[in-house]
Amino acid sequence: MSVWLLPENIADVLPSEARKLEELRRRLLDRFRTYGYELVMPPMLEYLESLLSSAGPDLELNTFKLVDQLSGRSMGIRADITPQVSRIDAHLLNRQGVTRLCYAGSVLQTRPVGLHATREPYQVGAEIFGHAGLEADAEVQQLAIDSLALAGLTDVRLDLCHAGVLEALLDASPAARARAYELFAALGGKDVPRLVELTADLPAEIAQALRALPKLYGEADVLERARAELPAFPAIRRSLDDLAYLARQARGAQVLIDLADLRGYRYHSGAMFSIYADGVSSALARGGRYDHVAAKFGRERPATGFSLDLREVVRISPIEAYPSAIFAPFGDDPALRERIAALRDAGEIVIQALPGDPRAVDEFDCDRELVSRSGQWQVVARAGVR
Amino acid sequence: MSVWLLPENIADVLPSEARKLEELRRRLLDRFRTYGYELVMPPMLEYLESLLSSAGPDLELNTFKLVDQLSGRSMGIRADITPQVSRIDAHLLNRQGVTRLCYAGSVLQTRPVGLHATREPYQVGAEIFGHAGLEADAEVQQLAIDSLALAGLTDVRLDLCHAGVLEALLDASPAARARAYELFAALGGKDVPRLVELTADLPAEIAQALRALPKLYGEADVLERARAELPAFPAIRRSLDDLAYLARQARGAQVLIDLADLRGYRYHSGAMFSIYADGVSSALARGGRYDHVAAKFGRERPATGFSLDLREVVRISPIEAYPSAIFAPFGDDPALRERIAALRDAGEIVIQALPGDPRAVDEFDCDRELVSRSGQWQVVARAGVR
Repeated sequence: MSVWLLPENIADVLPSEARKLEELRRRLLDRFRTYGYELVMPPMLEYLESLLSSAGPDLELNTFKLVDQLSGRSMGIRADITPQVSRIDAHLLNRQGVTRLCYAGSVLQTRPVGLHATREPYQVGAEIFGHAGLEADAEVQQLAIDSLALAGLTDVRLDLCHAGVLEALLDASPAARARAYELFAALGGKDVPRLVELTADLPAEIAQALRALPKLYGEADVLERARAELPAFPAIRRSLDDLAYLARQARGAQVLIDLADLRGYRYHSGAMFSIYADGVSSALARGGRYDHVAAKFGRERPATGFSLDLREVVRISPIEAYPSAIFAPFGDDPALRERIAALRDAGEIVIQALPGDPRAVDEFDCDRELVSRSGQWQVVARAGVR
Repeated sequence: MSVWLLPENIADVLPSEARKLEELRRRLLDRFRTYGYELVMPPMLEYLESLLSSAGPDLELNTFKLVDQLSGRSMGIRADITPQVSRIDAHLLNRQGVTRLCYAGSVLQTRPVGLHATREPYQVGAEIFGHAGLEADAEVQQLAIDSLALAGLTDVRLDLCHAGVLEALLDASPAARARAYELFAALGGKDVPRLVELTADLPAEIAQALRALPKLYGEADVLERARAELPAFPAIRRSLDDLAYLARQARGAQVLIDLADLRGYRYHSGAMFSIYADGVSSALARGGRYDHVAAKFGRERPATGFSLDLREVVRISPIEAYPSAIFAPFGDDPALRERIAALRDAGEIVIQALPGDPRAVDEFDCDRELVSRSGQWQVVARAGVR
């Protein structure tokens, strides 16, 4: 086994991709900042109970586990940053009013989501704590759409769903509640035969509604069909009203309703969304409301937010960041040294040769060079360079 | 045990510190870029053999170990990024000429270096591959000094050392070579009694030289004393000449020679440096030449570089990045929405209230606000704000 081979679904980010990732990372964090989101950096490592306190079985299976040599306790490497940010809001900041937080960093997962998926996504996201209203959901949803637009992805689709619809159906039937996890999985996978099987012995109204969910997919008129086909429970009405509001607020995306799109986060409590782009089967960004997560940290706080895997966004982003640079010869001339320092201070990339360095073509496009003319170091166009 | 408690020597980076860390991260990466260093992002996780292939026993003890569920093999969480970057240069880029690479990311360590040290340093560094000359060492050394200056740390001390001095002494005595690790540790800790003990049965010339090293500390005249006190081996002469050259090249730091300062990296092969600031006992940045590391990856490439823990630099950096922001009311008025979008596009931070949000004072300094006057949304100074 060669020591330079990496584990499956683990990869280096090499210069051209890293430059793009860094560029997008900055664009996103800068955009979040203009909305007033404050950056936080939770640790890679926490006690396992903290990382998993708000999680379903998926997150537990996906989390790498370690033993802490200092305490002997079990620790985990984070597989999701959102619960960490919720912990920070609940316990470290402990503010009364609305708090907007954002983050960007690697997470690790024991198993890839798909055959070619990375086990080290670069998760970037933004969360609003302390506001239960739909206005916060609308802000987060728009920020997610705008984030993809900053990556040059403007032709996107926003799929809206609402955890309240399924919750209301489960509330109405203890038998359905008892198999919530299985129903969740069948709905997420739009596995209709399995759904028929799981709902066979449920009250007719509930069974019918659960089986209808996968078909309640399409443009805004789906909401009208849902009102007709689903039971007239107040909680279902409110959920559909919420979705109508959020569909109206979204700008820069085609909006679809998908009442069965419950994949991804299992901790959501209200409106949820996924954003898709053409030619990519999995969602580029996911978000929604998850009011009960902070309660696990001992403090009830409404919360809504979104996150995306920046590696995946970089992979399909059309933006280019190919930097132009100035080539400089090696030399001890103080005038050369000063000129190079001044150019660099002005933001120019100046690649100085080292003695004997043939300066092969690399990632930088040295389209100019520093040459000495009449005793002055001047920047001139470099011949024969693309 | 409360679920919001973090493991010992592990901490969240909260908004005010995170903002500073992000600001410095960008300054450093931008500065590296103006020199032509290309950013790479190696993974958090690798097979253990790859991570430890170039390491001494310290790195092995410091590395968290995991089992890969996909392959059943042992993996480790990186405790140092430098060997990863060396692997990338040797195998992924595989260029002939000089390659400059830089990186920034978290590493994890099983045990803290000191009582209050973090187990999750944020390592930022830059490396030059493919150039064996001192010019590359000088560039890296200056970049390290400049990096601390970008963090507002201008009153720093550069301590120079050279692995070649100890190597030449070990080459001259198989008995000394056999206890190299112990000698290394005693020299690093300036533990003179232990050094006397370890050198008791060595040839007089070697024993005397090893015992002299801890006293060869001070300004440039130390090099003259070293020439007089150490054996006149050619390798020792060359090492002292190297240090004289590097001492002359350094700008923006007080330069000291410390021929026993071999702490930190055990993989160095040539000139090494540490940079210190007043009031901080451990080095803020360390660097030097490590030509033999790439050989472990099957390709001989000269290499020199430096790294620092950005968390520690942020802790003592005097820079402030307290952002000024504009407060905006909540509202559905399209003119308000457009005005906010335009201000944000221009880089302003606009914090829009959410319904019922009292907008308590937080990290942002809302010194201005958007108000409607004569049907126009205008930015005005906000009364009663610091």
